[in-house]
Amino acid sequence: MAARFDIVSQGEELLSGQAVDTNAAWISGQLGSLGLVPGRVTVVGDELESIRDVLRESAERAALLVCTGGLGPTSDDLTREAVALAFGRPLHEDQSAMAQIEARYRIRSRPMPETNRVQALLPEGAELLENHLGTAPGFMLDTGRCAAFFFPGVPFEMKPMVEAYVLPYARRRFSLAKRRTVFLRTVNLAESVAAQRMAGFERPGVSVGYRASFPEVQVKLHVDDGLDGDALAEEAIERLGRQLVFGVDSGTLADVVGTLLRARGQTVATAESCTAGRIAAELTATAGASDYFLGGAVVYANAEKVRQCGVDPALIEAHGAVSEPVARALAEGIRLGTGATWGLAVTGIAGPGGASPQKPVGAVHFSCAGPDGTTHRAVTLPYDRPRNLAASVAAALDLLRLRLLIAT
Amino acid sequence: MAARFDIVSQGEELLSGQAVDTNAAWISGQLGSLGLVPGRVTVVGDELESIRDVLRESAERAALLVCTGGLGPTSDDLTREAVALAFGRPLHEDQSAMAQIEARYRIRSRPMPETNRVQALLPEGAELLENHLGTAPGFMLDTGRCAAFFFPGVPFEMKPMVEAYVLPYARRRFSLAKRRTVFLRTVNLAESVAAQRMAGFERPGVSVGYRASFPEVQVKLHVDDGLDGDALAEEAIERLGRQLVFGVDSGTLADVVGTLLRARGQTVATAESCTAGRIAAELTATAGASDYFLGGAVVYANAEKVRQCGVDPALIEAHGAVSEPVARALAEGIRLGTGATWGLAVTGIAGPGGASPQKPVGAVHFSCAGPDGTTHRAVTLPYDRPRNLAASVAAALDLLRLRLLIAT
Repeated sequence: MAARFDIVSQGEELLSGQAVDTNAAWISGQLGSLGLVPGRVTVVGDELESIRDVLRESAERAALLVCTGGLGPTSDDLTREAVALAFGRPLHEDQSAMAQIEARYRIRSRPMPETNRVQALLPEGAELLENHLGTAPGFMLDTGRCAAFFFPGVPFEMKPMVEAYVLPYARRRFSLAKRRTVFLRTVNLAESVAAQRMAGFERPGVSVGYRASFPEVQVKLHVDDGLDGDALAEEAIERLGRQLVFGVDSGTLADVVGTLLRARGQTVATAESCTAGRIAAELTATAGASDYFLGGAVVYANAEKVRQCGVDPALIEAHGAVSEPVARALAEGIRLGTGATWGLAVTGIAGPGGASPQKPVGAVHFSCAGPDGTTHRAVTLPYDRPRNLAASVAAALDLLRLRLLIAT
Repeated sequence: MAARFDIVSQGEELLSGQAVDTNAAWISGQLGSLGLVPGRVTVVGDELESIRDVLRESAERAALLVCTGGLGPTSDDLTREAVALAFGRPLHEDQSAMAQIEARYRIRSRPMPETNRVQALLPEGAELLENHLGTAPGFMLDTGRCAAFFFPGVPFEMKPMVEAYVLPYARRRFSLAKRRTVFLRTVNLAESVAAQRMAGFERPGVSVGYRASFPEVQVKLHVDDGLDGDALAEEAIERLGRQLVFGVDSGTLADVVGTLLRARGQTVATAESCTAGRIAAELTATAGASDYFLGGAVVYANAEKVRQCGVDPALIEAHGAVSEPVARALAEGIRLGTGATWGLAVTGIAGPGGASPQKPVGAVHFSCAGPDGTTHRAVTLPYDRPRNLAASVAAALDLLRLRLLIAT
């Protein structure tokens, strides 16, 4: 049977609901992808007895325990003391830990506050685990039954420590095969459809997982070392639909579009009605976007469609603002106006209001104008306003991506 | 001593990290604001024995237990059975539950699948709790020591059920005073500064909480019934700084700005360089924004600042794109071009690149042009790119809000 792990997230702000615990999900995903089986995740607050009890119970049940939080220098940082009580391992000042903490303050040219001394306390028999990004060292205690790891709760410090210490330990201790995870990123593909298309793909050494983060669905291939991950990825892309997979181990859809534009020395400008700046925002989420993004027009009012993109008012009169001719005119207008290689336009009804019998909520027209002509696509999205908008941004960017791939 | 509550979140997707548990934080916040004390939050997966054990342990420890998830009709929905095992209460088909499920299918004019019958099973002695928004009814079981509530995991179904059943029960059973929570919403105010200014504000029947959701900080006043919540809110606003509180029990900052514009019959247009559409996106997050938002220009490239907003190229040459004169010219240019009552402009360096010795990363200029003139504000933000952009959006909207308040 596969080894079980437990996770303990310590912090009053997590327990009281002032913050949502995202550490546990990340850690669970990491250990799960190694083939370990999750037992429980427990959130406890700043109460010594509660922490002690949870740690003791988890170490009884699980072969591996990862606990985050409570390693800071203040009086509500109780994890060290709770470990000492839970496992009968009195605390002592660890010289290497002290040296590491002092070194971190030296790097920042700041004197170490006396209160930080407490961060060098380790339970008897614990192994020090260096934290390269903060003052709180981590540690590991093997109780015989359970290997218990303790890390600071700051995600930015915790994640590299889990990668450096827990994952290699777990592979060794539980004789797990080394695995690689290949991420196939898609938009315009429902998780249930992806799962259908991937049915029967699993085989010894290969498992499949999904991660949906609307409107994106990631298909994750966990591939044991020794198998050909690239060939398996190719096979999976074929099943999912080659055009639907926008990236393999890539950045976001906007990043992929940006990379394609940069490689071609091309630029894009946007004309957005319903999405009102969301495509431009997405394209500029990554630094350096000025290499390929010139700007755009947010044309919420019809008068702005006319003024900023030169759309013929008669076209709006005849077909309505949410129509193929207007979408095309917006894309061509912004391309002409800005001199960008590509003009990308969206006009639609995000809802909940604004629908007519001919044009339901969710009706969205996309157009992409480029050196080889102007294309158009229309959809009727079934979601609420925020998701209709998010799906529209993805669909627009994906339209440009496909144009970039064809126009080699 | 205050009564303790535990929360159990059931779901393999939560345990394995495919989804983050947000239910627990919401429930904990609700019960905490009544004055109850959180004990533990536990996440368990789809394993009957695990669920049974967690429920039994929590019901031993806590006076109140809220469990979400596992009430669906499929074979991995095990909560009902786990309750039966944990507390020795065999399941039986509840006639009212059955009637409610059938009624929900009648409303949708769809036949009830036979698999859904299982959702009418209740543990012996449990009280049925109607779900008005889905097919899975909830239930409550009083073990004598502990009142245990069970709800579906879908947040949209769970939240109204907690409000309808758990909160009134808790007030009654634990003799808690009825309380109102007043939300004071701020941007441009750090949580630590807010806490300093609110120090000593608490008194019998009044407690203070905080919720930070960058760049917004909410100060929550929990006020027992019988005390004057409005007067207390006034007192707190005075302490925090009247201009810094953009809303009391209000919508988002963009909603507040929208409401002010609509009330005045006025409009706004945006000219965004570094924020690249994010202000426009924020203003249009709520339906009906076309009442007051005309559109705007995303002027990432300098040529677009000139073309779309009529900025004099000599101004950019002399002062740089990130400067007071260019911010003013953008705001005035977009106001003039669109005919909007207000022109709102941002130009800045979001980072990590783009800095110069004179202009560090985080340097942002805002300008607001209106019927009574053009104002300007400059800041140097200390964050990373995403947070510099989010803080810039809030600062720009807040600048417009203050102009709207003055220009009565």
